[in-house]
Amino acid sequence: MAFSITLKVRDYECDLQGIVNNANYQHYLEHARHEFLNSYNVSFAELHKRGIDAVVARLTMAFKTPLTSGDSFRCTVDVKKEGIKYVFTQNIYRLPDEKLSVKASVETVCLIDGRLKECEELDTIFFGSKHKD
Amino acid sequence: MAFSITLKVRDYECDLQGIVNNANYQHYLEHARHEFLNSYNVSFAELHKRGIDAVVARLTMAFKTPLTSGDSFRCTVDVKKEGIKYVFTQNIYRLPDEKLSVKASVETVCLIDGRLKECEELDTIFFGSKHKD
Amino acid sequence: MAFSITLKVRDYECDLQGIVNNANYQHYLEHARHEFLNSYNVSFAELHKRGIDAVVARLTMAFKTPLTSGDSFRCTVDVKKEGIKYVFTQNIYRLPDEKLSVKASVETVCLIDGRLKECEELDTIFFGSKHKD
Amino acid sequence: MAFSITLKVRDYECDLQGIVNNANYQHYLEHARHEFLNSYNVSFAELHKRGIDAVVARLTMAFKTPLTSGDSFRCTVDVKKEGIKYVFTQNIYRLPDEKLSVKASVETVCLIDGRLKECEELDTIFFGSKHKD
Repeated sequence: MAFSITLKVRDYECDLQGIVNNANYQHYLEHARHEFLNSYNVSFAELHKRGIDAVVARLTMAFKTPLTSGDSFRCTVDVKKEGIKYVFTQNIYRLPDEKLSVKASVETVCLIDGRLKECEELDTIFFGSKHKD
Repeated sequence: MAFSITLKVRDYECDLQGIVNNANYQHYLEHARHEFLNSYNVSFAELHKRGIDAVVARLTMAFKTPLTSGDSFRCTVDVKKEGIKYVFTQNIYRLPDEKLSVKASVETVCLIDGRLKECEELDTIFFGSKHKD
Repeated sequence: MAFSITLKVRDYECDLQGIVNNANYQHYLEHARHEFLNSYNVSFAELHKRGIDAVVARLTMAFKTPLTSGDSFRCTVDVKKEGIKYVFTQNIYRLPDEKLSVKASVETVCLIDGRLKECEELDTIFFGSKHKD
Repeated sequence: MAFSITLKVRDYECDLQGIVNNANYQHYLEHARHEFLNSYNVSFAELHKRGIDAVVARLTMAFKTPLTSGDSFRCTVDVKKEGIKYVFTQNIYRLPDEKLSVKASVETVCLIDGRLKECEELDTIFFGSKHKD
C-alpha cells in the first residue's frame, strides 16, 4: 500500500474563489514526497547540504474535486524508476469521503554537485538491492 | 492553559537562508487562530459567508529562534478583549526542546457587513456570559 | 505573437535549494493568465463575483532551467479552444538570455454558477466572432 | 525621499475574504527591502553565500486599508541605525489614490557566520562615511 500523509487545509491556502489555490496542491505533493523520504530517515535538506539535489523535471496534475476551508485530505506517494528518473504517482483524496481531489505524476531527477546522475543512495533506499540486479 | 496546535515545518516554507521564511510564521499564527475558532465550532470561512470578517488591525512579532527543515513546533493562542479589539497573544515553541521561536501579539477587529462592530457571537464564544456583565 | 508579462524573482520565492520553488512557477503562470484576461478588460475576481469561475482541470509543466534570486523572466500566454476547454500554452523564459525555464500546458474550463458550461463571454473575447462560425 | 517599488496584487495573494492575505504584506515588505539592497548593488542571496545573513528580529505592522485583486501599490523603504539594529520604516500605499494600506517597522540584525555582529559593509552602503564618525 502506498505511503500517505494526512493534512488539513489552512485557510490562507484558499484564494478568492474560496477553494484551495492550485499551486498549493503542488506544495502538498512536495511535502508528502519529503515526508516519504523522512520515512526512510532521509532529509531533503540534508541531501542538499551534501550536494545531492532532487529536482522535478516534469509534472502532470489533474484537478478533480477542489478542497476548501475545513477539509482534511490524504496525499499518497508511490515511486518507480524509469531510466534515470524517479516517477512519483501521487493522489490527493478528500477525507472522510475519499473523493479523488488531485491525481498527479511527478518525474524527478538527481543532480549531484550540479550534474545529472544516478543516485545510488536513493536507489537503495527506495528499491533495495533488487533494483541493482 | 492556552490553546495550541502542533505543526511541522514544510520544506517549501524555508527560503534561501535554509530557515523558515518570516512570512510563514504569520501563516502559522493565522492557522492556529482559525483552529482555535474551530475548537468552538466556529469557522472563519463560514463567518465570512455570513458577512462577519475578523481582520487583523495590528501585529507585533519578535523572532527569537528560527525554525528549519524537519522542525516540529507548537503554536499557542490566548485571547482577551480590549475595547472593540480581540488581542491574541501567540507564541511559537520549537519541539521537543520548547525553545521560544516567535512571540506575537495580534490585534483583530470584526467587520460586520463591512462595518467595524462588536461581534456578540464571538464575545459569547470566547468569554461566555461573564463578558456581558 | 503571444501575450507576455515580465516579472522578477522575489527572494521569498526561492527555497532551501536556493532556486525558485516549483509551486511558484504555477503562481507565475496563473498571474500571467489573469493579466492576459486583464488585457481584454476582464477581471478574474469580477468574473467570480458574477458566478463565472475559470478553473484549471489539467496542468503539465516541464522544468528546464531553474530561476534563482535576481533573475528576471518573461511568461507567455497563448490560448486555443478544444471542445469545452481553453488550452493555454505558456512558457517562462529567463531574461536577458531568453533561455527556456518552464514549458507548460494548462487546460481550464468554466463553471457558471457551479456548473460546467461554455462561456460565450470568454469565447467572444478570446476568439471573436470567428469562433462562433 | 524614501526608496520605493511599485507592484501589483496577484490574485493568488488574495484569500477567501477576497483581499490580500496578511502574510503577503510581509512578503511585499521583504521584497522591497531586498530591492533596496539591490539599488546599492548588494544582493541578499550573495550576502548569504558570503556568510552574512540579515535577519528580522522584530516586526510591527498596522493594517489600515486592505489591498484587493487588481490593485497596484507602492512599498517604501527607509532605514536608520539604532545600536546594532537596522530599523526599517516601511509603508505600503495603494495606487493611484496613495491611501495608506500598511505601516510597518522592521528591525533587522546581521549574523556573520552565525554570530550577531556589526556589518561594516552594510553600514558603509546605507550610511556612508558619516556613520563612522
